[in-house]
Amino acid sequence: MMIVTDAMIRDHVRLPAIVGAIERAFGALENGASAIFDVARGTGTDPSHFFAVKSGRDGSIPAIGLKAGSYNPANLQRGKPAHTSTTMLIGDEDGEPYAIVEANYLNGMRTAAADALAVRTLSRPDATTLSVVGWGAQAVFEVEAVAAERPIRRVLACGRDAARGAAFRCAVAERCGLQVECVNIETAVRAADILVTVTASRSPLFPADWVRPGTHVSAMGADDVGKQELPVELVGSARLFVDHPPQARLIGETQHAWTAGLVSAKALAKHTLGALLLGRVAGRTSDDEITVFDSSGIAIQDIAAAQAAVEIVRSLR
Amino acid sequence: MMIVTDAMIRDHVRLPAIVGAIERAFGALENGASAIFDVARGTGTDPSHFFAVKSGRDGSIPAIGLKAGSYNPANLQRGKPAHTSTTMLIGDEDGEPYAIVEANYLNGMRTAAADALAVRTLSRPDATTLSVVGWGAQAVFEVEAVAAERPIRRVLACGRDAARGAAFRCAVAERCGLQVECVNIETAVRAADILVTVTASRSPLFPADWVRPGTHVSAMGADDVGKQELPVELVGSARLFVDHPPQARLIGETQHAWTAGLVSAKALAKHTLGALLLGRVAGRTSDDEITVFDSSGIAIQDIAAAQAAVEIVRSLR
Repeated sequence: MMIVTDAMIRDHVRLPAIVGAIERAFGALENGASAIFDVARGTGTDPSHFFAVKSGRDGSIPAIGLKAGSYNPANLQRGKPAHTSTTMLIGDEDGEPYAIVEANYLNGMRTAAADALAVRTLSRPDATTLSVVGWGAQAVFEVEAVAAERPIRRVLACGRDAARGAAFRCAVAERCGLQVECVNIETAVRAADILVTVTASRSPLFPADWVRPGTHVSAMGADDVGKQELPVELVGSARLFVDHPPQARLIGETQHAWTAGLVSAKALAKHTLGALLLGRVAGRTSDDEITVFDSSGIAIQDIAAAQAAVEIVRSLR
Repeated sequence: MMIVTDAMIRDHVRLPAIVGAIERAFGALENGASAIFDVARGTGTDPSHFFAVKSGRDGSIPAIGLKAGSYNPANLQRGKPAHTSTTMLIGDEDGEPYAIVEANYLNGMRTAAADALAVRTLSRPDATTLSVVGWGAQAVFEVEAVAAERPIRRVLACGRDAARGAAFRCAVAERCGLQVECVNIETAVRAADILVTVTASRSPLFPADWVRPGTHVSAMGADDVGKQELPVELVGSARLFVDHPPQARLIGETQHAWTAGLVSAKALAKHTLGALLLGRVAGRTSDDEITVFDSSGIAIQDIAAAQAAVEIVRSLR
């Protein structure tokens, strides 16, 4: 059994490798070679400590895998991160676990990798202004991912906690060589060519009419029942793509527009990131269109990213 | 992260320690301190390779945990065991994984430990004849568990594959110091004071009237939709106990009697192994009664057994 630690991943795994792995994984999912199993959920003794197991089979490797993920806000008072993620990889043939991968850092890359692929296929090629709503740890990965796909010159950002904003500015400068302008949310949304929302919000962050024609929006935050970042009118009227339709309409940003009857089952089934990457469906159809990518985060991302990390770490020996 | 291997468990972990841990776990479950999360299921690329993740929280430790289990009959042709099980233990407070426990051998002990507790609370104290239907790897653990609880002098056994029967006889002689008599199934069932069924059967193994008054039956095999070892009349008329009512009626032996309307929801909810162990419900009420224990196998057994193994291995250092 191979153990891959966060430190190994931080030192040796770079985003482009993960983007490549995630692209292959979404292709295999679209081709029916993969499967996503039901999510198991529960809590710790403290009911605000949420626990979930996402599992599936990634046909692009192929391997079975599971990610055990925990979110306990009380950890922050203990000087520990609120989120923990650990992925187990299991042989598709023999059922034998062959790697345990600490996925606290990797999780940021696997999420941002899906965003990179959405931006590559949906945003205007000349997009230069990136706005980010929410500046937690994940936001830095998002800037890195988007800036690798488009000629980003301006990064606007807003968030609630000024201290985290300062940390975000430093991290983006260091990791991406970009200066972040801290602005209010209206300025951020109105100026965006590419808008990334990456919060734990449970209600729309802004009105639909702040979003300019031609903007691409990546809604990265919603991954549970009740979470919401965008107004339903925006999701219902935009050209919408999702990672995995059954999960998107249950726990993704799409859940609200779906419940409101603004998204058809037929369109949802066709408008997947996998179909986009395989060229089976058109992405952006005009410069004025607003496109939305709803990322709820799926097990095959965890499996593909963990496998990529395993291969990179193995190659160092 | 601590790694506990099958070899460490084989060398250092003995059944009584696991029985104690499983007893505490069933008590905590009954007291509402534990939780069992939904089971996630899927397959490998080969659809006959079944995969499942059982997870939950064991309030007796407390810890969160998951067992990834795989069953691929094609492994046997590769000279590998068909079953693989691996348990991950995660802090109830901080959500951090702290141990990976190979549970191929441990799984046998955790299953037999529930049987030991059922035999302790349900079988006649003077039971001397144990009959075992099915003689795969699990059957040896069952003999060891039952013989530790009751003054077993005779062990009768039957199974389909003569070669496995020979291996079973040797293992029981070596591990339990008991001679196994290989007999036909009718002889085995009719002679039993304690009858253990431990097969992958999908239909009743024998008619109900072969079972003598006063027999205790432990049905260890059924753990999936469609699996069945006992006739519904036996389950419906016996004094029935289960490990976990919601799971027993879905995937345990109880599923068939439940569907046939022979088991009431009220009785099922009260008749748990945990309630028996806490003395909240009477076990056997007469020497002539037939008792049945339906073991579907639950996540808290995996967590409690893995934690016991972790503590034993840690104490060796």
